Amino acid sequence: MIKKLDHIGIAVSDLKTSKQKFKTLTDVKSPIGELVESQNVEVAFYPVGESRLELLQGTSPDSPISKFIEKKGEGIHHLCFEVEDLIETKLGLSKAGIEFIENISEAGAGGTKVAFIHPKSMGGILIELVEYP
Amino acid sequence: MIKKLDHIGIAVSDLKTSKQKFKTLTDVKSPIGELVESQNVEVAFYPVGESRLELLQGTSPDSPISKFIEKKGEGIHHLCFEVEDLIETKLGLSKAGIEFIENISEAGAGGTKVAFIHPKSMGGILIELVEYP
Repeated sequence: MIKKLDHIGIAVSDLKTSKQKFKTLTDVKSPIGELVESQNVEVAFYPVGESRLELLQGTSPDSPISKFIEKKGEGIHHLCFEVEDLIETKLGLSKAGIEFIENISEAGAGGTKVAFIHPKSMGGILIELVEYP
Repeated sequence: MIKKLDHIGIAVSDLKTSKQKFKTLTDVKSPIGELVESQNVEVAFYPVGESRLELLQGTSPDSPISKFIEKKGEGIHHLCFEVEDLIETKLGLSKAGIEFIENISEAGAGGTKVAFIHPKSMGGILIELVEYP
């Protein structure tokens, strides 16, 4: 069961330039930043209502974000929805024929659990589901 | 000043098939549907938290949605943010160098005013701003 849109992941080629634009758009002066070394990405979060915009820049050419931009250009990379119970949600969606990329990962930031729905199951959109502890 | 994410516009080639998928994902059984003849699109809205997912299918080959899918395939077409005061917001963003596609339209559904930021100003993302009456 989806509670809300947690964030929209946006792939950018130059975080500094994009931060300037999203600061102007959202009026958020100090976004929360993070370097996710395991994924080779640097991120910046802009709160908007109950959701956030997450800018993502690859920090090496083999980062998933760098590869995405090489193939499709800058733009929206994924949507992330918060769910109440990830195991139950994944089971229900899988039963209905929706395919997931991997098993549930429990290595998310702040003790979150995450899982990704395959874009081919949702009209080309990569969807992340997150459960907060 | 942005209040919240109003909706995410998603271009789909077959509304019937996509509605099935998004019904499964969101658990919304009866999305609000609309035929927007001026734009040659048929839409379906799925509430998610304070936002909505808007599926858009072109109803003729010269619909903006049909052209988008021909060029880029199915996927996210635009983000729409609700603002307090559209005239003031547009003025502020324009002053900061952000370009808009057209002037403010007051022909939106339910007395809304809308304006679109040019994708080249926001890293390839088409952004709609809406003010509710």
